[in-house]
Parts: sequence; C-alpha cells; structure tokens
Amino acid sequence: MKTYTIAVLPGDGIGPEVMAEAEKVLAKIAGKYDLSFNFTPADVGGIAIDRHGKALPEDTVETCRKADAVLFGSVGGPKWETLPPEEQPERGALLPLRKIFGLFANLRPAIVFPQLKEASPLKAGIIGEGFDVMVVRELTGGIYFGQPKGNDGVKGFDTMVYTADEIERIGRLAFETARRRNSRLVSIDKANVLSTMVLWRQVITKLGAEYPDVSLSHMYVDNAAMQLVRNPRQFDVMLCGNMFGDILSDEASMITGSLGMLPSASLAEASEGELPFGLYEPSGGSAPDIAGQGIANPIAQILSAGMLLKYSLGLDKAYDDIYAAIEGVLDEGYRTADIMSPGMKQIGTGEMGDRIAGKI
Amino acid sequence: MKTYTIAVLPGDGIGPEVMAEAEKVLAKIAGKYDLSFNFTPADVGGIAIDRHGKALPEDTVETCRKADAVLFGSVGGPKWETLPPEEQPERGALLPLRKIFGLFANLRPAIVFPQLKEASPLKAGIIGEGFDVMVVRELTGGIYFGQPKGNDGVKGFDTMVYTADEIERIGRLAFETARRRNSRLVSIDKANVLSTMVLWRQVITKLGAEYPDVSLSHMYVDNAAMQLVRNPRQFDVMLCGNMFGDILSDEASMITGSLGMLPSASLAEASEGELPFGLYEPSGGSAPDIAGQGIANPIAQILSAGMLLKYSLGLDKAYDDIYAAIEGVLDEGYRTADIMSPGMKQIGTGEMGDRIAGKI
Ligand SMILES: CC(C)[C@H](C(=O)O)[C@@H](O)C(=O)O
Ligand SMILES: CC(C)[C@H](C(=O)O)[C@@H](O)C(=O)O
Repeated sequence: MKTYTIAVLPGDGIGPEVMAEAEKVLAKIAGKYDLSFNFTPADVGGIAIDRHGKALPEDTVETCRKADAVLFGSVGGPKWETLPPEEQPERGALLPLRKIFGLFANLRPAIVFPQLKEASPLKAGIIGEGFDVMVVRELTGGIYFGQPKGNDGVKGFDTMVYTADEIERIGRLAFETARRRNSRLVSIDKANVLSTMVLWRQVITKLGAEYPDVSLSHMYVDNAAMQLVRNPRQFDVMLCGNMFGDILSDEASMITGSLGMLPSASLAEASEGELPFGLYEPSGGSAPDIAGQGIANPIAQILSAGMLLKYSLGLDKAYDDIYAAIEGVLDEGYRTADIMSPGMKQIGTGEMGDRIAGKI
Repeated sequence: MKTYTIAVLPGDGIGPEVMAEAEKVLAKIAGKYDLSFNFTPADVGGIAIDRHGKALPEDTVETCRKADAVLFGSVGGPKWETLPPEEQPERGALLPLRKIFGLFANLRPAIVFPQLKEASPLKAGIIGEGFDVMVVRELTGGIYFGQPKGNDGVKGFDTMVYTADEIERIGRLAFETARRRNSRLVSIDKANVLSTMVLWRQVITKLGAEYPDVSLSHMYVDNAAMQLVRNPRQFDVMLCGNMFGDILSDEASMITGSLGMLPSASLAEASEGELPFGLYEPSGGSAPDIAGQGIANPIAQILSAGMLLKYSLGLDKAYDDIYAAIEGVLDEGYRTADIMSPGMKQIGTGEMGDRIAGKI
C-alpha cells in the first residue's frame, strides 16, 4: 500500500475547522484507492508567532521538506495586524515558503459552479452558464523578490525583474495548462510601459511557436482588469507575472461570487517525469470573524486537497471524485451560510464535510 | 471679456468627432458666461505619426505650452499597433505629455448615472442607486518612470520608486478631493510586499493627521480589485500610485457600464492661489471600429471639457451646467448606440452634442 506524507498546516481563523473536513475527505479517498496518508501537522501563521515567535518556524519548514506535498489552511487575524508587515502571518509565512520551496507557479481556478451562479456579483447575462478561468501566476520572481529594494523614510524603491528563463518556465506551464483545457492563452503584461514586460511579451510570443495548437493573445493588465468584469467568459487561461497575477487572480475569484469555494495550487519545478512538489491552499482568507463557530465553508479547503492529489500525487481520478462529490452535495441543495440562498438547506462546516466525504 | 486659450488635440478614431461636440458645448458656455475660448488645434497620436513622424511633435508641445489647458481626444488604432511600444500613439503621446507638463495627478471619476444604472455589469442590488467613486492616481512617478529600467533580451527590469515628497504631493490632493466630496479616503498600497508602498503608507498615515475631518483607511491593491466588484459603493476617493491606479481606475470605470460617459483630468502642480494647468481626456479609447460613422458617444469628451472648466479655469458653475445638461438629455430618453436600451431614443454623435449644447 502506497503511503503519502502530507504536511498539514491549518494556520489561523477558520483554518483548523476547514482542514479537519479536508482530512475527512482524504481519508475516504485513501480507503477507495487503497493507499494511506500520513498527515504531519505543523504550526504556521499567527499561531506559530504565538507559540514559536515567528510565522514560519524552522520545524514547520522541516515538516514540509519531508512531505510529498503541503496542505495549507489560512493565516492571519486582527491579533497580529500591528506587527511589522514582514513579520505578519500572511507575508511572513507565504513569501518564505514560496521562496524556500521554489513554488514558482500559482494556479488559481476561478470557477462558477452552475449551482451557485446566482452568487456572482455580475449580471446573469454576463455569467451565462458560468465560467471557468484559470489564472497562472508567476510566484517567485518579479517585483516581489527583485533586488535592490528599500525604504529609508525619504525614498522607497523596489525592482521588478524577470529573466527570459523565468518567463519561459512559467510560460511553458501556462501553455501546457491551456492545452489540457480549451487551448486559449491570454498573456497579461504592460509592454507599453515596462521593459520587464517587453521581454515578457517577446519570450511568450516566441514560445507560442512551440504550441501552435494553443491560441495565444496578449492583453495589457489594465484592459484585463476591465475585461474580467465585462466578459469573463472570453478567458480560458490567463498568464501573469507575480504582481499582476496577485491583483487579477483576486479580481477573478471575487467575480465568481463564491470565494469560499476556490482552491489554489503553488507548484515547484518537477524533475523530468516526476510530479511537482506543491503547496495547496484556499483562495480566501482566514475569516477570523466567523472562526470557531462551525459555519465556515470547507469546500475551498477540500478542493485544495483535491488539487494536491491531482497535481502532486498524480491521482487525477481522486480529484474528479472530490469534484463530483461537491457537485452532488450542491445539487441536493446543501449550503453553508456564505453560499446560502432561498430554498436551500443551510448546514455547518462539519456536516458539509461529512456529506462530501459520504459521496466519495 | 476674458479669453482662454485651449489646446485642442482630437487625435485618432472617434477623437475628432466627439471633440467637435465638446467645442459646440464650450461655445455655448462662452456665450452664457461672457467669455471667449481660443481653440488652438494640434496633431497628436497616430495622425501625428502619419503627418509628422511622431506621436507628439514639438509643435504640439508648443501649442499646449501656450494654452491655459489641453483638451485631448483619444489616440491609437490598428494602423499603428505594429510600431515599437514607445513609438505607438498612446504610449508615445501620453507619457511624454505627462512628464513634460508635470501632470502628476490623474483624477478619474467612475460615476454611474442613475439613468444608466442598468448598463453596469454588476447586479442591481450591488449598484443600488448608483455609485460615484473618484480614483486619484499619481501619474508622473512610480514604476512608469523609475530608473534604471531596461531589457537586453536576457533580463528585463524596471524600478518602482517614490519619494516621500511625491507621495505627500499626491496625498494632499487626494485629501483635498475627499474633503470636497464625502470625506472618505482609501489609500491603496501593497505595503505587505513592496518597500515603496511601506513608505507610501507611512507618508499617507502621517498626512492623515492634518486632515482629521477625512476618514482615512488603507487597503491592499489585490483586495481593492475585489472590493470594487463586491461593493463599489463603499468607496468615495481611492488614492493610488501610478501602476495600481492604472489598473484600478480602469476596473472602476468598466464597473459603471458606461465607459463612453467618463472623463478624466490630469493636473500639474499649481502655484499658490493659482489653478493648475491640466490635460483633460475621455477615459475610454479611440474606438477605431466605429470611427467616422457619427455614432460615437460624445459625452465623455464633453464632460472632460467640463472638468477643464472647473479644475483649470475655476468655472465651477459652468461644469455644473454641463453636467445638468447631460442629465437633462438622458432624462428625456436620448441615447447614443453604446448606451442604448429598450424604450429609449437612439441618436447620433452630432444630435447628442446639439441637444446637450441646447440645454446650456
Ligand atoms: C500575503 C501576500 C504576500 C500574498 C501575495 O501578495 O502574494 C497574498 O496576497 C496572495 O496572493 O497569496
Ligand atoms: C497608454 C498607457 C501608457 C496609459 C497608462 O498606462 O498610463 C493608459 O493605459 C492610461 O491609463 O492612460
């Protein structure tokens, strides 16, 4: 029986509650596919600051290093908001994790579940039967990490920088992703103003020749911010650098109207023929205002576990099972508070997890 | 009789058509207030490339320099899209104009006219009775102009940089703007990642002490991109650096659903007691696909002329007249094609201009 080690980092706020549901679902998957999961828990974020003095303790890094993949909850809350930015739970945990493990590719699906299309802030005529956009964001380069950067109180500065190799690496992943979907890739840049983005467009254009089956186009980031609102269905895969991807992936997920449903994957480079190490987490935040009440929506966490199975463990069928189980429960009319609508049956975090697990 | 010189730069696409309507309206304003406008035309954008070899000829700069303000149409079109980015009409005209004239502050109202609230891509429940957000964008600093920047085909880089003075200058303007509106200012940054934005937040926070009557809050740019979609009515004035303002102002204007209605002002620093020099232009583009057909919506251009009167000439009442005239024509049910809806009366560019002028 194959055993996979999964580092489990529940974090703060609703993190621990929704993580428990994801573990339930994974346990059912293990039974179904005759494999076993070794869950290794570790502290991260605010709770790690409280217990160990920093958002990402060495021990947590070690736990992740020994695992096949990391399942991350969410971090942050009012308690730690007055710390200096780089020590705060989100910033202090996520950026170092990305850098240490070389998680260069962030995949963020913005999916409207047909059962929840009413929840979108956009009009029904724009949403149609729903949309499914995948934002591929570069995650370890660009202005997030470029040197020099500094602030002496008189002048603040940061450096946006990409090498052709970095662009090509994320570009390939985006083209491959498009190929497995509807073969349409829109590369986002600001080549009319930024030199970094001129190189970005050059590299992606050149790479496009290797993927003649994928239709490639380019769009300025300001226009993309408009087009997502005007007609999100025009997009299949959007490829962005780190900063633009941060903004557009959040905009895209808000447009679905169900942030509590959306997972994300942050992937490392894989050796030839191997699957990538990755960190998987919900797109939404730690929602401290509803933590501990048993009302949080665990679906984003469960789908993140599903992405983990698919991308880092190659268990595509298990991902499909989870997705189908979620759709089944939604079809039966069960909803957590955040996605509740008239005529539906409102249930809590635990019951949602049980019902999804029950369908595996 | 006071005479004002206005440099008129119609540009490409629908620019000349809609500019003609703005001139009609200004002529009526001149009559009403017993003043005169001396319109000095000049080429800019694609037409300037065709006629003079560059998007912003020296003569055009001279014409602007001699004027009290600049009324700009719109530039760009497929014909010039294959030029190198820095020679293209938009980039090649706008960035130098901003730099030469020190147009450090961009004001972009995103207004939903009550008569047109159906046009918003957002649901009626979110739009309510409409919203009115003012985006104040820094326009001559940040990553747009920071040095060094370059691209050698292997590595591309740009520098985001702001000095405390630059931040304070745009900050003051944003606080003053908020004061004249609903006294709520949200400053947008990414202080959790960018050093430039740590300084941004420090300076704006400090400045806030001088404006105790304005309620100040801070929001990360990724969150702002979400909040604009989730609940735009929470905003009064949004203050952004150059890059974030580029993205968010476009998103905000698309959310209104009537891009063809929205003006913008780009202002220079004013000497004590004087009004600022400024460049005024529609938020939308040159719409080459509908150019020359007499169907373009001239309202954004007319409102841009209105902002010119208010901000650079101090004719606040004339601005109000124009605004009221537009509302009057909308109330009567007249619509250009882009804002047409069932039961309304569709009219062309010229008739829309005539009707608005007729109400002055
Ligand atoms: C917390 C922050 C550093 C992070 C980012 O900007 O990357 C977050 O917004 C995200 O998108 O995961
Ligand atoms: C054309 C381009 C340089 C410009 C910008 O990015 O500032 C445009 O998008 C705008 O917002 O006026």
